[in-house]
Amino acid sequence: LGEFGLLDQLGKKIPSAKVPVGIGDDAAVLTLRPDRWILATTDTLVEEVHFSRSWATAWQIGYKSLAVNLSDVAAMGGIPAYALVSLALPPSLEVSWVESFYEGLAACAARWNVEVVGGDTVAAREIVITVTLLGEAEPHRALTRSAGRPGDLVLVTGDLGASAAGLEELRTPRLKDHQTRELACQRHLLPVPRVEEGCLLSAFPGVGAVIDLSDGLAQALREIARASSVGAEIYADRLPITPATREVAAYHGKDPLWYAVYGGEDYELLFTARPAQAVRLREKIQTRCGTPVTVIGCLLPPEEGLILWRNGDRQSIGRGYDHFQPRTDL
Amino acid sequence: LGEFGLLDQLGKKIPSAKVPVGIGDDAAVLTLRPDRWILATTDTLVEEVHFSRSWATAWQIGYKSLAVNLSDVAAMGGIPAYALVSLALPPSLEVSWVESFYEGLAACAARWNVEVVGGDTVAAREIVITVTLLGEAEPHRALTRSAGRPGDLVLVTGDLGASAAGLEELRTPRLKDHQTRELACQRHLLPVPRVEEGCLLSAFPGVGAVIDLSDGLAQALREIARASSVGAEIYADRLPITPATREVAAYHGKDPLWYAVYGGEDYELLFTARPAQAVRLREKIQTRCGTPVTVIGCLLPPEEGLILWRNGDRQSIGRGYDHFQPRTDL
Repeated sequence: LGEFGLLDQLGKKIPSAKVPVGIGDDAAVLTLRPDRWILATTDTLVEEVHFSRSWATAWQIGYKSLAVNLSDVAAMGGIPAYALVSLALPPSLEVSWVESFYEGLAACAARWNVEVVGGDTVAAREIVITVTLLGEAEPHRALTRSAGRPGDLVLVTGDLGASAAGLEELRTPRLKDHQTRELACQRHLLPVPRVEEGCLLSAFPGVGAVIDLSDGLAQALREIARASSVGAEIYADRLPITPATREVAAYHGKDPLWYAVYGGEDYELLFTARPAQAVRLREKIQTRCGTPVTVIGCLLPPEEGLILWRNGDRQSIGRGYDHFQPRTDL
Repeated sequence: LGEFGLLDQLGKKIPSAKVPVGIGDDAAVLTLRPDRWILATTDTLVEEVHFSRSWATAWQIGYKSLAVNLSDVAAMGGIPAYALVSLALPPSLEVSWVESFYEGLAACAARWNVEVVGGDTVAAREIVITVTLLGEAEPHRALTRSAGRPGDLVLVTGDLGASAAGLEELRTPRLKDHQTRELACQRHLLPVPRVEEGCLLSAFPGVGAVIDLSDGLAQALREIARASSVGAEIYADRLPITPATREVAAYHGKDPLWYAVYGGEDYELLFTARPAQAVRLREKIQTRCGTPVTVIGCLLPPEEGLILWRNGDRQSIGRGYDHFQPRTDL
C-alpha cells in the first residue's frame, strides 16, 4: 500500500488558499471561485476491456484515464479543477509501472491545470482505474445533452474514426510506414480533450445540445435524441475522416465510415447550434483554438428517428460501441 | 450496460436548484450553500479483499460502500451531500444483485441526505466498487489529522474492536446464540458513520486532530503522530470494548484487545482535545447524539513514540491492518 500510494507518488502538497487540505487526510478540502457551480464526473477503465498493457504503456494509460474525464467536463462547458484517483492493482504489479502511470496522469493534469487531491489504492486481481474529476461552470451556463431543437445544425470538432482506426492498428499492426502507424495509434492512446472548445461553446449564444464522443457518433446522437426529444439526419459525405484513418481502414479491409459512426473514443465534441449562429460559432472555434469544426447534419422532429444519408441512400443509425459486448470486428 | 446502469436503477431525477443537472449527462452539475468549502473523498472496495458475497448481501455491500465514505466526511467535520458510484461488474452477475446493491446504497444515502448524482458501470472479472463522496464544510472549520498537540487527551466515540470481531464470526461462525451473532456481524456489515458527531466537533473550540477508524486504532494513531508530529500513550484498560466483542473473542480464542487496537473498520471517530475542553466536549456529544465518548490516552512529544500501557507494561504500538497483506489471523 505504502509504495503504491498516491502520497508517495505525487508528493504531499503544501496547503494553499485553493486547496486548504490536499492528499493525506480523511478527505480533501477544496475551493472554487465564488458562486461557481460544481461539475462532477467519473470514469472507470478496466484492463483488457478499455486498455491493454500489451499495447499501451503505463504512462499512456495514466494520461488517458484523466483525459477521458476532462472530455466530460469539456462537454459541459466547464473548467476542470480537481481529480481523485482510485487504483485497484494486482499486488504482483511492478512499482515502476505504477510510478509511470502517475507520471502520465500528472502530465495530463499539468497540461489542463488539474490538481490531484485524493484517491485510494487497493489490491485486486486486475487493474481497475477510477478517476473522478471536479470542475466549475458559470451558473446557468452548463452545456447539456437536452438543449437541442429540431432545425439545429449538427457540428463536430476535429475528425472522426481516428481512435477506432488506431485501436485496430494497435491490436493488429499492419501499416508499413512507421510514422503513419505512430500517428494513427496516438489518436487512440493520447486523446486531446476539447476543454477550450467547450468553454467557448458555453459562452456563445445559439448553442443547443453538447456531448463528447466517448462511445461513438451513433451513441452520442442517440443520447441527444433521447435527452432533447429530437431526431437527426447525418450526411456521410460530410463526415471529417482523415487520409490516415482511411489508410488504416484500407490496410485492414474495413469501411472508414464504420470507424467514424460506430467507433468510439474520439473524444471530440458533438454539438448542435441554431442555423443563424452556426457559421460564426464554427469560425470562432477555428480561430481561437485552431480546431476544425464541420457541419455534418441537422436535428429533426423526434418521429424522424436517426438517419444516415449515404450516396442518396437513407440508412437507420443503429447501436454504437457497447462496453458489455465489445464488437470483435472493430 | 443498460440494465446495470445507474440511470435505470436510481431513476432520472428532475433537475432542481440544488442539482441543476443530475445523472444522465456528461457530468453532474451541483451546488453547495454559499461560501462553503468542498470536501471530496473516495474509497474502493474489492470483492474478496474488502467484502465477500459468501457472507454479505448485495444490500449490505451497497450500504457499506457509501457508509465508509460518509465516515471520511464525518472525520473532517463536514456535511455529506453528493455521491458518484462507479461499478466494475462481472457480466455474469445477476441483475437482481445489482438492484439490491443500489437499494442498500440508496437507503444509506437517504439516511444521511446524500444525493447520488453520477457514476459509471463497466465490465470486469471481479466486483470493484468506487464511491466518491462530496460534502461541504464551513470555511476554516474542517477537522484534520494535523491539529493534535502534546498534552491533548485522546478520545474515541462508541466502542472498539466490534467490527473485527464481527468479521471473524462472519468468516468462521462459532457463536451459539443467534441474537449475539447477528449483533456482532451487524457491526462489520452495516457501520454507522459518525456524521453528527463530526459536525459537533467542528463547531467546538479546543478540538485537536480528528481521524476515522477505518484501518484500526494503531494505524489511526500513526497517522495522527505523523501529521501532527506527536507521540501518544494509550491505556489498554480504558479502551471501550463491549461484552459482545469479548464474547466473540473468547469463542475464537483471541485477545479482544487485539481486535480493538489492530482490527480495522470500526468507523468511530478518534480525536484529541485540549484537557480543559475534553470533558465538556464528551458530555456534549453524549447528550446531543447519545454516543458514548471515552478518554483512552493522551498525546506526547514526538520522541516518545506510540505506547500502549497494559497492566503496567509499556508496549510499542506496531502496524495495523494492511490492505496488501491482510492478516490471516484476524
